[in-house]
Amino acid sequence: MRIIIINGPNLNLLGEREKEIYGNLSFESYLEILRNTNKDITIDYFQSNIEGEIINKLHDTGFAYDGIILNAGGYTHTSVAIADAIKAIKTSVVEVHISNIFARENFRHISLIAPNCKGSIIGFGLDSYKLAIKSF
Amino acid sequence: MRIIIINGPNLNLLGEREKEIYGNLSFESYLEILRNTNKDITIDYFQSNIEGEIINKLHDTGFAYDGIILNAGGYTHTSVAIADAIKAIKTSVVEVHISNIFARENFRHISLIAPNCKGSIIGFGLDSYKLAIKSF
Amino acid sequence: MRIIIINGPNLNLLGEREKEIYGNLSFESYLEILRNTNKDITIDYFQSNIEGEIINKLHDTGFAYDGIILNAGGYTHTSVAIADAIKAIKTSVVEVHISNIFARENFRHISLIAPNCKGSIIGFGLDSYKLAIKSF
Amino acid sequence: MRIIIINGPNLNLLGEREKEIYGNLSFESYLEILRNTNKDITIDYFQSNIEGEIINKLHDTGFAYDGIILNAGGYTHTSVAIADAIKAIKTSVVEVHISNIFARENFRHISLIAPNCKGSIIGFGLDSYKLAIKSF
Amino acid sequence: MRIIIINGPNLNLLGEREKEIYGNLSFESYLEILRNTNKDITIDYFQSNIEGEIINKLHDTGFAYDGIILNAGGYTHTSVAIADAIKAIKTSVVEVHISNIFARENFRHISLIAPNCKGSIIGFGLDSYKLAIKSF
Amino acid sequence: MRIIIINGPNLNLLGEREKEIYGNLSFESYLEILRNTNKDITIDYFQSNIEGEIINKLHDTGFAYDGIILNAGGYTHTSVAIADAIKAIKTSVVEVHISNIFARENFRHISLIAPNCKGSIIGFGLDSYKLAIKSF
Amino acid sequence: MRIIIINGPNLNLLGEREKEIYGNLSFESYLEILRNTNKDITIDYFQSNIEGEIINKLHDTGFAYDGIILNAGGYTHTSVAIADAIKAIKTSVVEVHISNIFARENFRHISLIAPNCKGSIIGFGLDSYKLAIKSF
Amino acid sequence: MRIIIINGPNLNLLGEREKEIYGNLSFESYLEILRNTNKDITIDYFQSNIEGEIINKLHDTGFAYDGIILNAGGYTHTSVAIADAIKAIKTSVVEVHISNIFARENFRHISLIAPNCKGSIIGFGLDSYKLAIKSF
Amino acid sequence: MRIIIINGPNLNLLGEREKEIYGNLSFESYLEILRNTNKDITIDYFQSNIEGEIINKLHDTGFAYDGIILNAGGYTHTSVAIADAIKAIKTSVVEVHISNIFARENFRHISLIAPNCKGSIIGFGLDSYKLAIKSF
Amino acid sequence: MRIIIINGPNLNLLGEREKEIYGNLSFESYLEILRNTNKDITIDYFQSNIEGEIINKLHDTGFAYDGIILNAGGYTHTSVAIADAIKAIKTSVVEVHISNIFARENFRHISLIAPNCKGSIIGFGLDSYKLAIKSF
Amino acid sequence: MRIIIINGPNLNLLGEREKEIYGNLSFESYLEILRNTNKDITIDYFQSNIEGEIINKLHDTGFAYDGIILNAGGYTHTSVAIADAIKAIKTSVVEVHISNIFARENFRHISLIAPNCKGSIIGFGLDSYKLAIKSF
Amino acid sequence: MRIIIINGPNLNLLGEREKEIYGNLSFESYLEILRNTNKDITIDYFQSNIEGEIINKLHDTGFAYDGIILNAGGYTHTSVAIADAIKAIKTSVVEVHISNIFARENFRHISLIAPNCKGSIIGFGLDSYKLAIKSF
Repeated sequence: MRIIIINGPNLNLLGEREKEIYGNLSFESYLEILRNTNKDITIDYFQSNIEGEIINKLHDTGFAYDGIILNAGGYTHTSVAIADAIKAIKTSVVEVHISNIFARENFRHISLIAPNCKGSIIGFGLDSYKLAIKSF
Repeated sequence: MRIIIINGPNLNLLGEREKEIYGNLSFESYLEILRNTNKDITIDYFQSNIEGEIINKLHDTGFAYDGIILNAGGYTHTSVAIADAIKAIKTSVVEVHISNIFARENFRHISLIAPNCKGSIIGFGLDSYKLAIKSF
Repeated sequence: MRIIIINGPNLNLLGEREKEIYGNLSFESYLEILRNTNKDITIDYFQSNIEGEIINKLHDTGFAYDGIILNAGGYTHTSVAIADAIKAIKTSVVEVHISNIFARENFRHISLIAPNCKGSIIGFGLDSYKLAIKSF
Repeated sequence: MRIIIINGPNLNLLGEREKEIYGNLSFESYLEILRNTNKDITIDYFQSNIEGEIINKLHDTGFAYDGIILNAGGYTHTSVAIADAIKAIKTSVVEVHISNIFARENFRHISLIAPNCKGSIIGFGLDSYKLAIKSF
Repeated sequence: MRIIIINGPNLNLLGEREKEIYGNLSFESYLEILRNTNKDITIDYFQSNIEGEIINKLHDTGFAYDGIILNAGGYTHTSVAIADAIKAIKTSVVEVHISNIFARENFRHISLIAPNCKGSIIGFGLDSYKLAIKSF
Repeated sequence: MRIIIINGPNLNLLGEREKEIYGNLSFESYLEILRNTNKDITIDYFQSNIEGEIINKLHDTGFAYDGIILNAGGYTHTSVAIADAIKAIKTSVVEVHISNIFARENFRHISLIAPNCKGSIIGFGLDSYKLAIKSF
Repeated sequence: MRIIIINGPNLNLLGEREKEIYGNLSFESYLEILRNTNKDITIDYFQSNIEGEIINKLHDTGFAYDGIILNAGGYTHTSVAIADAIKAIKTSVVEVHISNIFARENFRHISLIAPNCKGSIIGFGLDSYKLAIKSF
Repeated sequence: MRIIIINGPNLNLLGEREKEIYGNLSFESYLEILRNTNKDITIDYFQSNIEGEIINKLHDTGFAYDGIILNAGGYTHTSVAIADAIKAIKTSVVEVHISNIFARENFRHISLIAPNCKGSIIGFGLDSYKLAIKSF
Repeated sequence: MRIIIINGPNLNLLGEREKEIYGNLSFESYLEILRNTNKDITIDYFQSNIEGEIINKLHDTGFAYDGIILNAGGYTHTSVAIADAIKAIKTSVVEVHISNIFARENFRHISLIAPNCKGSIIGFGLDSYKLAIKSF
Repeated sequence: MRIIIINGPNLNLLGEREKEIYGNLSFESYLEILRNTNKDITIDYFQSNIEGEIINKLHDTGFAYDGIILNAGGYTHTSVAIADAIKAIKTSVVEVHISNIFARENFRHISLIAPNCKGSIIGFGLDSYKLAIKSF
Repeated sequence: MRIIIINGPNLNLLGEREKEIYGNLSFESYLEILRNTNKDITIDYFQSNIEGEIINKLHDTGFAYDGIILNAGGYTHTSVAIADAIKAIKTSVVEVHISNIFARENFRHISLIAPNCKGSIIGFGLDSYKLAIKSF
Repeated sequence: MRIIIINGPNLNLLGEREKEIYGNLSFESYLEILRNTNKDITIDYFQSNIEGEIINKLHDTGFAYDGIILNAGGYTHTSVAIADAIKAIKTSVVEVHISNIFARENFRHISLIAPNCKGSIIGFGLDSYKLAIKSF
């Protein structure tokens, strides 16, 4: 099975920024753990701060991979274009969020991409990714 | 580890009602599968159509269990009282939904209980419960 | 033909409370009249102030009766759970209201249950029930 | 007893248009049935696509008839002027709708005329008219 | 000087309907008084319940008269088309209302036509017309 | 007959400020004209930029004068306290505005004081005051 | 091919009114040009200021013509009844607007009829009609 | 004088939950103090997490007691049915809240029951009950 | 103990205005009763119709008195500045209202000052002040 | 004449994705047809999923080309920046959409770019581009 | 050059109130610093808690000074009258705020006066005034 | 001291586009002036039309520079992702706008990034940048 994790804007700073919310583990370190505990799964990784590059990657992988795990970061709440991309591809997408977006500012309570995803896993810290892998 | 699954209104009809959305497995049958594949965990179960009985059960288990999995059904979108109960107890609560509530009617897009939960798992069919157990 | 009338919160006070709106006939007295003028129909009756008990009764009768007449009272405007129950059952439900809810406070203008009902009969006093019986 | 049925815009196409919603019976054929089963009642009929002509007819009949049955079609949701006309006349008006307007688009959920009517009967197909006659 | 008073829907019932709000003088009787006390002004009169006929009359008089006094009744709050007609013509239009529309239902608080009128005179009973004549 | 004109904030600048909207006549000059053409009426005048002083003046004159003409300026749209004062006194108050407030910014379309006034005269330039005097 | 152009309220004033927005060509003159440059198409024309007459014309032509071009003017934003008529007929309707309605007042940004039309052509001056003909 | 205190959902946890908001005194202990300092008043007590049971209790006591003190907890903001019950009974109801609901989340700023109560006492900690007793 | 009662706009008319709502006792008479029944407390009094003078008084007393009782009248619903003043001072402020503001117009349902007050006492007539004194 | 067609996000998938909405012709194939039938016009083409690259292209061509045809895809509804770019350039821009955006989800009903475009052509499938070329 | 700083409600408490937000320097002390570091500029100062006095001061200085620096405090968000005053005068006004109003309560995010000011400087502590002086 | 100015979409056209709003100086020319008058400060400059590149630059400089001046152009009103980036970095960011965004369209009145910035300087033309430099 081949899965890709796509991370959106600011998630490259994980482990450096706002550690009281996001913890102090970098995503690369966490990815290693994920790969070690899921050895039968190929887990690719992509991060970009650019909305359109995320769309490009969804197009590139969306007809070939077995699953996509997407943390669209701030674009979750504003991007009709990413939502359209998810709808346009074949591979099902699981939405994840590290923090509980419902317990934060009001504008984070609405996800434009959720309706087009297979499901959403929200608020379990980095474990949200682990659960997402288990969902395929 | 001791966990309780609390199901809210109409979930007693699972397997009988709206099978195109919810599938045709009864929750009791599914529960058996869950218990067999998680033999190291005690999984208790409670269902009620009465909002206040769900609150009572949250009070009863919320200081003793290791985890609560709550599918509040229609009360998800209307019950300040259940949300308050979740906040009042010690045990952390994981919100689950069988269907992707974000892909359904507008009034299902807002969860009053989500801000007080540890996290939310939405849209994976009955597997939402399985993932919730893995989240503890 | 077997029909059940389900009355929601505060309708047990009919004939005692706010007589200028609801008249001074108790529902029991009215029921007798209804039964006498519809002798070929079995008309059962249930009243509860508890939202979940109304759901329970909808489940119990919703696969066996020929028709359900529901006056959900104040729950009409707030209960997603009752609306879900109506959608989950087989028997068609007719919504009735004694008073013209559209001529009262704004919060009474929206019925959450109406979209899942067969039809609605609103504002004819106790005659709303009589017309509902004729609708089957 | 003398009653008039007033039908608003597009209801002249009944039986021709959107048959999956409105059925394939023309209103004229249905009217004949209504008259045959209510021989003690004079049932007049008027249809117009013009908002002001409906108001004119309400004025003409609103001080002389025993009852008015009004299906204002699309004007239900937009016409303050028809609502005012109903309030200005003596004869009580019963609002009817063939389809369940609460189960359709959002803009059909609000009736401007309902607050001024005696009552509303919604969603029983052409039977809504039959029930309206029984309500007088 | 030549002026026309254009009255919209239901104003033909003046003196007959809702006398506690509108008084019991018919508009025709009042018009006679108006003409007697303004002998140097030709005061024409037009009433229609049909939105488009009001537009037609605005077109017909809107390039020839010295002033138009418009009580658009219920169309005040819903008619973009009448507002457009007022904007399209040369003659300035004074909006009048008999009752204080701001002290009635919420939907009467917004006038779509007011922004295109020269001015508005609201709430002085039939004297609103008298004041409007004095405004030219 | 004894009348008082109460002008609210910024109306002391009339004739100096924004002449394209308000003209270049000072209110004092206009007042002289008003008094000359209404010699049988005592017309007092008061202006203040302070909300509470307007309330004080309403209290002082509101049980003794035959009429109050109030241009509350910017307080029209924000002052519950002035609206309450109008309701609390005996003398009826006529609201006037020089410009057509409905053709200006959105926040000027709502008058908090209008519901408590006898009537409103809006948009006739300084003539709005003249018409207001004629309304008593 | 047989097409009809239906123009709504105030469009009869084209070439006379608000020329800075709509130009100074009358629609009749423009129609002649249209017919000359589309000699293989029969182009009928109808204009009315009355909402219900537009509905009548849609009914009359909506089962016989090859195409309908509709500029509903101010009714675009307020008429559920015209929208219903478009849905009820067989012939597809193309919505046109002379001016860019999205660059004007807020209330012109929403078209109630657009969802039921084949397509919309907005803002090209009278050329909007020319393009609409080319769309069939 | 005979009074009943009715406490709604989660108030049974008082003294155990969120002590920084609600203090660490159980309601039972507080009740004893209340009774001791108001010896001439019979103070009954009822608590339930079930909305309908609160309605039942309001019905039972609402025609017999001299006063009802109601802290409806989370139902304050969502229950039309409890509001209806208060309106339906004879005994006047005083609304109390321990915390200042206006200083908390937005959804707590609106009380559906307040309009039907005699008065509201909000934010004085457990002293709110003491003041409520003094209000009879 | 030293307390001050600050009354806002129009409360100087108490006993003269709208007696069906506010009763016919002047505040001065009521104050005498209050002082007589609370002889151990110094009760000062201040009334102003001017928003800024209320702020001045809050500043003057807000670091010296033991308690402030504030009925801000119409400023309750519009004054961010008074709300800021309450937050800026040391002495805690109790909000009172004579009438049940939640049972009146919509704009009276929101208090801008409540979030900054210790508590609110609403709807007990002049007794609201008595209860407020007991709350210190 | 030199024109450029700029396609926004996901339009590179045309012919592959959601064929029931967008058809199964790739844009490249369609472009060939367009060019063949408009031999006197140079038609350049650009597609990007990146918002800022669309802005760059608008800047690059917006002072040199005779016309720009823009299908901004999902950015239509969210991009103030593209709207600003259209306003900043000289060449006029025609907005096109393949599907009828008004008949789809609510968030697609508002175009942020439309007010700055020359005109909009919506809902004619790929023919929308053909009509846009004819509009220059 | 002659400039005046006008401070609105509660700013007289600077240095005493909410020091964690506003610092512990009184405005008088800060003013001395400002004057010392801008010796070529006459800096006058005015503070009032009364909305109308701020308007009076704007009138008095608004045709004579070279610049006005206005911190309207809580009136920023509620005063149409001050906004009108700014528009009515000649001297340009610079809006300042000590704290970042966009990072505080929602009702502080909207400034009614900003549209009429030359510019706004927000969030730099007392340095906001220093920057404002540099802006002339 | 080392500062970077980051300009967002369309600001590369400064001096070319909409000169009546933005003036006719290019940003490069202005930058030279800025550097000459602030010789002790290193002022770097970056412009991009791509949202994600602005985020990248914020990450690159946000832990090393002494200050960031950000004019996010159209992204100001739509980008949660840029707002998140500002919050994630160490260096404080000052928001600037050339024009008075509060005096323009409604959608420009809300800045998503302002709450995370140190302060905002709005409406002083290119001088907004000069003031921003002085703010560090």
